[in-house]
Amino acid sequence: MDSFVFSNPTKIVFGRGVESQVGSETGNYASRVLLHFSGGSAVKSGLLGRVRQSLEASGVEVVELGGVQPNPRVSLVREGIKLCRERDISFILAVGGGSVIDSAKAIAVGVPYSGDVWDFYDYASTPTEAIGVGVVLTIPAAGSESSSSSVISNESLELKRGLTSELLRPCFALMNPELTCSLSPWQTACGAADIMAHVMERYFTNTKNVELTDNLCEAALRTVVSSVPKILADPSDYAARSELMWTGTIAHNDILGTGREGDWGSHSIEHEISALYDVAHGAGLAVVFPAWMKHVHGHDVARFARFAVRVFGVDEDFFNPEAIALEGIRRLESFFRMIGLPVRLSELGVPTDKIQLMAEKCTVKGHGTTGNFVKLDAAAVRKILELAS
Amino acid sequence: MDSFVFSNPTKIVFGRGVESQVGSETGNYASRVLLHFSGGSAVKSGLLGRVRQSLEASGVEVVELGGVQPNPRVSLVREGIKLCRERDISFILAVGGGSVIDSAKAIAVGVPYSGDVWDFYDYASTPTEAIGVGVVLTIPAAGSESSSSSVISNESLELKRGLTSELLRPCFALMNPELTCSLSPWQTACGAADIMAHVMERYFTNTKNVELTDNLCEAALRTVVSSVPKILADPSDYAARSELMWTGTIAHNDILGTGREGDWGSHSIEHEISALYDVAHGAGLAVVFPAWMKHVHGHDVARFARFAVRVFGVDEDFFNPEAIALEGIRRLESFFRMIGLPVRLSELGVPTDKIQLMAEKCTVKGHGTTGNFVKLDAAAVRKILELAS
Repeated sequence: MDSFVFSNPTKIVFGRGVESQVGSETGNYASRVLLHFSGGSAVKSGLLGRVRQSLEASGVEVVELGGVQPNPRVSLVREGIKLCRERDISFILAVGGGSVIDSAKAIAVGVPYSGDVWDFYDYASTPTEAIGVGVVLTIPAAGSESSSSSVISNESLELKRGLTSELLRPCFALMNPELTCSLSPWQTACGAADIMAHVMERYFTNTKNVELTDNLCEAALRTVVSSVPKILADPSDYAARSELMWTGTIAHNDILGTGREGDWGSHSIEHEISALYDVAHGAGLAVVFPAWMKHVHGHDVARFARFAVRVFGVDEDFFNPEAIALEGIRRLESFFRMIGLPVRLSELGVPTDKIQLMAEKCTVKGHGTTGNFVKLDAAAVRKILELAS
Repeated sequence: MDSFVFSNPTKIVFGRGVESQVGSETGNYASRVLLHFSGGSAVKSGLLGRVRQSLEASGVEVVELGGVQPNPRVSLVREGIKLCRERDISFILAVGGGSVIDSAKAIAVGVPYSGDVWDFYDYASTPTEAIGVGVVLTIPAAGSESSSSSVISNESLELKRGLTSELLRPCFALMNPELTCSLSPWQTACGAADIMAHVMERYFTNTKNVELTDNLCEAALRTVVSSVPKILADPSDYAARSELMWTGTIAHNDILGTGREGDWGSHSIEHEISALYDVAHGAGLAVVFPAWMKHVHGHDVARFARFAVRVFGVDEDFFNPEAIALEGIRRLESFFRMIGLPVRLSELGVPTDKIQLMAEKCTVKGHGTTGNFVKLDAAAVRKILELAS
């Protein structure tokens, strides 16, 4: 186990109807907030209206900024920063899923910064302060409701980049699983793939002696594998929706990664796909992760065999761990297919003519590597994208 | 899954040598601290000297209060409160295990309170403020380094009572597994039983649909079961010491109990034993828990069968879950024996002539019940103590 520092102060309020507490929770931090959202379902379902009402009932003045898109854009972030400065706003309430929360976090670090917020995502600068962020979560997926990360797309540069900082952890997250019952099978499945990916990025590690976190990771993965089919059979299954929603938070609140080096190669490859083709992040991960596994499993067959046995219940074969390792990868791919996700670039609607470009973009213009479990150079990334074709 | 609120802001700094950061961490909170400890090993090992040095190097003035005993006494707590007030101290640094930390927490809520601190442990009052507590942990056991609870003994009343409040979570905990390598096999085993008990008190629940936390609890329990024999075989096994130490925190930081009602009957029974006989808490739990299980397993045979299979690897027998449930209890008892713990009152050195008194003391003078999984009246507690005889 490696040395580590861990702290996650986000207050989670979980259960039926908890969004009604948004006024009082927000009121603890500010009397004027930026209400940040995408539009669409939060408006139609009446959620946004209820949130607005609760805020006003608690005497919190609301300034609105909607229009967040999946793979949230730095252009809207800049607009939000300007608005917060003009209206002297020191708290942002994100109502939505990972895109809205990530956009809110970007605004939060951008407001007190004198330069352009993209500097933080381009590794040109490191944030030292941020205004507060609160969350009403509607999609279990990104884990952004208590994570220290934010991923933003720069549409003019065709880049999608992540920022990690303890400053980015939200002050609170209100999580009502009922709000997720209206998610489509597609949204649910994409979220599940994102959740599994967050755990698997931590699980596949070279750090030795990480028994507790191995066990915890497997516990979270098994929960996703058992919950999603129940949800797809009955979208209003509150119990299964609850399991998936809470697992989404646990998957990315950093407990599961304590004392171990994560990989994050699959995420960086997927970011290149989304940056060019604007695909759903979870769907992109469902395509990339099995291909990544096929490419790297030989690096630690025992770990992949354990994954197969402990997560997918594959029968142990002590005399042929390689076969078990491969069976685990097949099971993951089958699981993604079963819940309606693509597992090939073609099924994702992504052509193969820019594979070389993507491989170079995610390896420092082809001169570096991505990932930690196995350091992938541009040729390796290209190979993985070909395996995904 | 039940609704819940969860927040745990304690900053964990984990790894070799982290106690050297105590000065800078403490300096973030105060320039004068009460250094609270027991004496014994922390003095002999030189740890206390190193802590003092680090504090002084960071310009933190130190006022000392040693002498904390196992099953920490309210008399020393009162002394600490007086000292903090006289010397205008607003931060307590606990160097030790659960007893020292629990004593520090009691002082922390007592300082700003106008009445007697025992009021909080006697349910006569609820704390509304507290001064800060920091921790250098030396024993993985109580989980007090990030928990919201404190257990104190009132020697004149022969009572041992717990207080739970979010105010009690320490600001930081410095956790160096190397410091635990000098713990005796007995201390290690008692700690392990305490850790397992914290998980099992949460695991045995009537709350339905708690798949994620069931999985996480089993993950933590399996880690204890696999780590302790390694430690007993090689006390300086840093990897296994790390697993046990971090599991001790996870077991009681409240993540594993989110959305489910805990039981806590075995803890309350054990508190009556310690209050009268001053036994080691972990040893008392090793005696009480298997007896409690024998008494209540019929209430939910499926859950006990799952415990046997998932924690102790008992072969499933779908046609006879009762036998599997009983085998799980036997395995737990065998595990405790194997690591050198008592599993009967007689082995603990506790006579049976005060069973009735203990049964009444832990059930509101015999008029109430204890525990949630099965509500135990005085007759049931008596039965459990007889099963432990």
